[in-house]
Amino acid sequence: MNSVWLNGKIVDESEARLSPFDRGFALADGVFETIRVRHGAPLWLADHFARLRLGADCLGIPVPWDDGAMDVGIASLVSESGHADSAVRVTLTRGPSRRRGLWPPDDHVHPTLFIAVAALSQVTPQRMTVARTTRRNQHSPLSQIKSLNYGDNLLARREAIDRGYTDAVMLNGRGNVACCTVGNLFLQIEGRWVTAPTSEGILPGLARARLIKKLAVAEVIIDEPALKQATAAFVSNSLQCAPIVYLCGRSLPDESNRLDLMSLYSREEM
Amino acid sequence: MNSVWLNGKIVDESEARLSPFDRGFALADGVFETIRVRHGAPLWLADHFARLRLGADCLGIPVPWDDGAMDVGIASLVSESGHADSAVRVTLTRGPSRRRGLWPPDDHVHPTLFIAVAALSQVTPQRMTVARTTRRNQHSPLSQIKSLNYGDNLLARREAIDRGYTDAVMLNGRGNVACCTVGNLFLQIEGRWVTAPTSEGILPGLARARLIKKLAVAEVIIDEPALKQATAAFVSNSLQCAPIVYLCGRSLPDESNRLDLMSLYSREEM
Repeated sequence: MNSVWLNGKIVDESEARLSPFDRGFALADGVFETIRVRHGAPLWLADHFARLRLGADCLGIPVPWDDGAMDVGIASLVSESGHADSAVRVTLTRGPSRRRGLWPPDDHVHPTLFIAVAALSQVTPQRMTVARTTRRNQHSPLSQIKSLNYGDNLLARREAIDRGYTDAVMLNGRGNVACCTVGNLFLQIEGRWVTAPTSEGILPGLARARLIKKLAVAEVIIDEPALKQATAAFVSNSLQCAPIVYLCGRSLPDESNRLDLMSLYSREEM
Repeated sequence: MNSVWLNGKIVDESEARLSPFDRGFALADGVFETIRVRHGAPLWLADHFARLRLGADCLGIPVPWDDGAMDVGIASLVSESGHADSAVRVTLTRGPSRRRGLWPPDDHVHPTLFIAVAALSQVTPQRMTVARTTRRNQHSPLSQIKSLNYGDNLLARREAIDRGYTDAVMLNGRGNVACCTVGNLFLQIEGRWVTAPTSEGILPGLARARLIKKLAVAEVIIDEPALKQATAAFVSNSLQCAPIVYLCGRSLPDESNRLDLMSLYSREEM
């Protein structure tokens, strides 16, 4: 039995069913969060809930559950799952609407909230290319929230795999370096750690914020040629940090142990 | 009873249920088509199916149904619906995947195909502004297929409604005129009809292709100031053409009757 949480109830996943008129399915009208569970404890919950609400607000989706209800739901699923280390995904959509069209009347809105736990995949050293198929849209507010609109990232990932890499660096519309397909990019250039500012069309990652403090990272605009100057690199998201061991035709050393990146994923004092 | 078609079976919509692990719901990993039914007949079916397959191919989603099966499904739903004029939506996704991550192994792919009929809304004269919240991404192949990634269009529509308009003209990353939130934009400037080329980040609409022929429309790059030079304008999609009667602070005449735009929506000889 694999339990999931759907609109306030824990049910077996075989019984969890969505309406095909859900606007998350029809129009990517929603947001999500992916939360690391380590030693049985979900990390950075307050920050995840705050970002979920910020994204929902950007799309104009009400969140008719308080943090406590989501917290209890996550705790129950995690405890039932038996995984001490796992990934929790929380998905919020505007919910089902039988009305056609982009914008349903407000009184028709019954949001969907879905929570599930999955096993965590191992940290894999990344071999990166630069995606040529598509780019991040720095003009879109969606680039700075965790919306369901993942199509461009899917295309970039597919291109990377087709070309024999594990992932791709995505450029933005200006041709500057933005991020990877599921995480923020950190580069060591001339001895200094750098990452792109959010205005370049990137998600303000929760691990990213912690790494900026931990490694005194500078938020600077990074042009594409700078990728070739990197002497070390890694990619971060809320689940893990992965070393980049190959970037734009050059091998790079794995600095993750020396930098003690794993220590980031620990429960913080309130 | 309202019937829908889900993965080859006609069921009542109350029984049509998707897995919350469907990648259409989780990551906007899919495409759709919206098809006009007029006098009981679905229009432009071969073109709609071809565009659906082109979009699926762009995302690497197999389509395990032939055109005949989809055709029969649509005909059954239309006949049961009792609507002589309606809108059919066909949605294709990569289907459910319990595996986390952007790219599931190919042997885990079981696409979802969902078809539903809805009543057609009346043609409403449009009052347009220019969206400032977000822009089309002309670097993304998704801008030229009918993908589920509708977030930017939702934001632009919401902005328009919040500011007292019915819809918005969307610019692209270069600041040029792209399209409206659910249709292609046509402008009459100095006596000539123009529309943006697909390279500006717009969907190659099926009505658009027919209008280009009918009105000898020129596909040209349109900068934002050109909007103020328009002496007539309308927006088209596969369901209908709507006149634009207000654009960037100026009233415009409704030319739809004179141009006989409705005649576009008729069954074509094979």
